[in-house]
Amino acid sequence: MGKEISQAVIRRLPRYYRYLRDLLDEDIERISSNELSTRMNVTASQIRQDLNNFGGFGQQGYGYNVQYLYDEIGKILGLDCRHNIVVIGAGNMGQALAKYVNFEKRGFMIIGLFDVNPALIGSSIRGIPILHIDALSDFLREHRVDIAVLTMPKDKAEQISDVLVTLGIRAIWNFAHLDLHLPEDVVVENVHLSDSLMMLSYNIVKKRMEQTARPTDS
Amino acid sequence: MGKEISQAVIRRLPRYYRYLRDLLDEDIERISSNELSTRMNVTASQIRQDLNNFGGFGQQGYGYNVQYLYDEIGKILGLDCRHNIVVIGAGNMGQALAKYVNFEKRGFMIIGLFDVNPALIGSSIRGIPILHIDALSDFLREHRVDIAVLTMPKDKAEQISDVLVTLGIRAIWNFAHLDLHLPEDVVVENVHLSDSLMMLSYNIVKKRMEQTARPTDS
Repeated sequence: MGKEISQAVIRRLPRYYRYLRDLLDEDIERISSNELSTRMNVTASQIRQDLNNFGGFGQQGYGYNVQYLYDEIGKILGLDCRHNIVVIGAGNMGQALAKYVNFEKRGFMIIGLFDVNPALIGSSIRGIPILHIDALSDFLREHRVDIAVLTMPKDKAEQISDVLVTLGIRAIWNFAHLDLHLPEDVVVENVHLSDSLMMLSYNIVKKRMEQTARPTDS
Repeated sequence: MGKEISQAVIRRLPRYYRYLRDLLDEDIERISSNELSTRMNVTASQIRQDLNNFGGFGQQGYGYNVQYLYDEIGKILGLDCRHNIVVIGAGNMGQALAKYVNFEKRGFMIIGLFDVNPALIGSSIRGIPILHIDALSDFLREHRVDIAVLTMPKDKAEQISDVLVTLGIRAIWNFAHLDLHLPEDVVVENVHLSDSLMMLSYNIVKKRMEQTARPTDS
């Protein structure tokens, strides 16, 4: 497991994992790279190259053992461990994430929500307490927390992320609409919804222009 | 504006746009590629190359006019038009998106939410009505809708996306955890939160292994 796999391949793994889950749900035990290729709409050679990174799970004439491949990719993605999560910001997005049960199936357990809004503090979502942000440092002393999710306004996010790192957090899932400046050993994954929406509108405008430019023959 | 810009450059534009907005908020009228480079943590030469795609907005010894660049990138991203949006699925994520006011500042207006849950239908969020999904086709006849957001469970998403396309929708912002199979002329932008969380856990595990492997000298 020690060898280096390119980030491009890694970025594709969650998608493989999702398709393999679907195959398991359909009671499909093995699949050829060609069949998987048709389902996933990528070339069979790309699939073989990608999956060869993990020591050639496929066998000539048999294909891939779906359960085995699913488990191995799960391990590579760290899904065989439990990840404890706190959410900083119990507003709309924080609450939506806390209500989303599917994360738990993959071992991502939200164990605390934090906010400064007195109207929220003391209540809970699916049994997860909403606590005041001042209680965060005690909470982190008492619980192992692997990931902090930032869903608060942009202007508070930089400061809170510094506090989190000081308190020992080494992974941040950042929904705040800014780039965090954190030490090298802190892992950050950004979800910038506005950026995603802008890409959509770019592609809408581009497609419209293409269609306007296209001659109307044929 | 007709020339082709690479997708890699386009993917970086929302980030430029965000930094330029910050500069405007700080009343900064012009900026050199070097200063922008420091702020954005990318090389000045990358910035010059990227922004040269738009006809060299920068001037030697002056730098970039922030407002002009902001407006031009906004136009390229289609942010000078209003985009009407419907959200299919008025659950947690759908409601969180509807409550998020910042999209409106960029011209993305949510004008309707749709669901099948009788407990939700008839209510509204920030004045946006939650309607029954059966009312969708009438709604689309009466309103210009540019984007449909899918925030419903995976098992319904494929079918609904086909219906949307039949009803004339040409852009989908997909939060459902599957790949949609749609005609070429439909623009899709995916937000797969589970995939993003898996990348985070992959990087957590990787970093832990690196730190375990690292000799403890120095």
